[in-house]
Amino acid sequence: MRETLDAIRPPDEEAMAAARARHDRLTKPAGSLGALEELSIRLAGLAGTCPPPLPAPAAVAVFAGDHGVHAQRVSPWPQEVTVQMVANYLAGGAVVNAFAREVGAGVHVVDVGVAADLDPAPGLIVAKVRPGTDDLAVGPAMSEADARAAIEAGIRVADRLVADGARILIAGDMGIANTTPAAALIAAFTGRDAAEVTGRGTGIDDYTLQLKTSVVRTALRRLPADPDPLRVLAEVGGLEHAAIAGFMLAAAAHRVPLIVDGVNTLAGALVAAALHPGVTAALVAGHRSVEPGATAALAHLGLDPLIDLHMRLGEGTGAVLALPIVAAAVRVLHEVATFDSAGVTEK
Amino acid sequence: MRETLDAIRPPDEEAMAAARARHDRLTKPAGSLGALEELSIRLAGLAGTCPPPLPAPAAVAVFAGDHGVHAQRVSPWPQEVTVQMVANYLAGGAVVNAFAREVGAGVHVVDVGVAADLDPAPGLIVAKVRPGTDDLAVGPAMSEADARAAIEAGIRVADRLVADGARILIAGDMGIANTTPAAALIAAFTGRDAAEVTGRGTGIDDYTLQLKTSVVRTALRRLPADPDPLRVLAEVGGLEHAAIAGFMLAAAAHRVPLIVDGVNTLAGALVAAALHPGVTAALVAGHRSVEPGATAALAHLGLDPLIDLHMRLGEGTGAVLALPIVAAAVRVLHEVATFDSAGVTEK
Repeated sequence: MRETLDAIRPPDEEAMAAARARHDRLTKPAGSLGALEELSIRLAGLAGTCPPPLPAPAAVAVFAGDHGVHAQRVSPWPQEVTVQMVANYLAGGAVVNAFAREVGAGVHVVDVGVAADLDPAPGLIVAKVRPGTDDLAVGPAMSEADARAAIEAGIRVADRLVADGARILIAGDMGIANTTPAAALIAAFTGRDAAEVTGRGTGIDDYTLQLKTSVVRTALRRLPADPDPLRVLAEVGGLEHAAIAGFMLAAAAHRVPLIVDGVNTLAGALVAAALHPGVTAALVAGHRSVEPGATAALAHLGLDPLIDLHMRLGEGTGAVLALPIVAAAVRVLHEVATFDSAGVTEK
Repeated sequence: MRETLDAIRPPDEEAMAAARARHDRLTKPAGSLGALEELSIRLAGLAGTCPPPLPAPAAVAVFAGDHGVHAQRVSPWPQEVTVQMVANYLAGGAVVNAFAREVGAGVHVVDVGVAADLDPAPGLIVAKVRPGTDDLAVGPAMSEADARAAIEAGIRVADRLVADGARILIAGDMGIANTTPAAALIAAFTGRDAAEVTGRGTGIDDYTLQLKTSVVRTALRRLPADPDPLRVLAEVGGLEHAAIAGFMLAAAAHRVPLIVDGVNTLAGALVAAALHPGVTAALVAGHRSVEPGATAALAHLGLDPLIDLHMRLGEGTGAVLALPIVAAAVRVLHEVATFDSAGVTEK
């Protein structure tokens, strides 16, 4: 973890200036690509070169874990749905698989904490730290050593995917009840009240939402003032949130962009940013989930999402959907003719 | 034109009901794909079958024309930029080409009214009605016969692209000064004031915006109360707006979806909807342009855009960027496993 944190560098101002200057020479009115211009400039800064590399191939990692807090009935779904959905991802039958096929991304599933033994399968990365967390409603979700081990598992996944050729990473999550620890992490790192950041997840009723909010609020009371990020993660987080944080830190260390999905990956991003604020230079917000915690986390991280389609599925779906937009933004710097080269008169 | 209008059918309620029912059986929380679920249901209704066909291959048509109103100095760009940009599209050097390569769409350029003779070239569809419009500031932009001929040119382009295998169409535009007739068309069809719908186009200054708004307002005064759509188009429109309207009507007649881009294609959509309100069932709003007329037109047509990234380039760029989102929405109905088939427990 230390090595990864130490490798994170600030954006390259020279590459960003080159990207800005290049945009003004391309055959389009200056500024007419709006947020895409800013995005391509950020990615030049991350890569340290203009144009930045085309973000392909893309690798999606869906981090899966289970949650002791499921015992509090914060979700109407049985816990075994986590492992059933892992099987669905591996068989290619989930929404994230359909979206990934559409945009040409590969899908990997990372078992960082599923409460069941999984058989080896193509596409499954076994990195289990423990079979699910303890119930955060009654005590720490895990030890700080486990939290650190899960972060390091996420780092290793990114290291491996980048070594295998990935030039953009996409973070996804699966874990029944995981929007409860996500809300707790978001409240802890943004300073918002539990009620502001706790949402309906898969679609819970008013009673369950009240219960879930109260679970989050109670757990947060155990945190000292200004706690260490690892302590927060261990106390109220999930194994997949920890691994996602590590995944993001390693992306930043490799200067490879990473598309963030919804509330769970954003909770991981807050952990990562608490460990090293420079990580945000590598993060692209794929979409705005309807979960209130997502909007709170995006604001705290200073990220503007590319898509806002009222989605709330997780799995990385909103991030995968944004991949062609990110790739299109970069392509402009590679492929669009300049006024001079195309013989187009300027105003 | 008559034949095309007569072929437009209302959405198939049965196919829509089947798509809705299918969404509830897929391995995801009900409703968790937000606007994508509604989109896929609409496309099932358009196609008359569930799942609707995958929207591939995709064909982009950039309709190009010149505008007599350019003489009023409503744009800082020289008129010859229209023909120069047509050459840029044909050489593959514009932003729409880069975006289309990213998403796997083919780009065609339709000369429906460029004020120059174009040499034949691969990708160029010659359908010139006349070399540009007359100045709408001082009289009708064109005759009703020319407006009809341009609509029919657009119909023939769609007929040809669908016959060649396209399963989704994307409308783009090029024509220096064309946001002036677009604003006039939008004001005429939505009933909004010229000042509400006239924008800065490629980025004009305050003085030019005032002039442009005044040109639009003056031209609108020549229209009778409740004029025929063809009369509006002839009086204040452009050849590319007319052709885009025809392109959309033919897409609807073929039950093929069409992604709308910014303010110019939306102006064409308003013409099409005035000729046959059923056309909107085939239209997908790709993005929300920053042009104020775009938002007015989207509201009038009842369309919610998929992307909102502060773009204002035209050429079809915002629509092309939305293609993978449309395709992903349809893929869900084709490829995602059901709870039963995947062995996933329901809540």
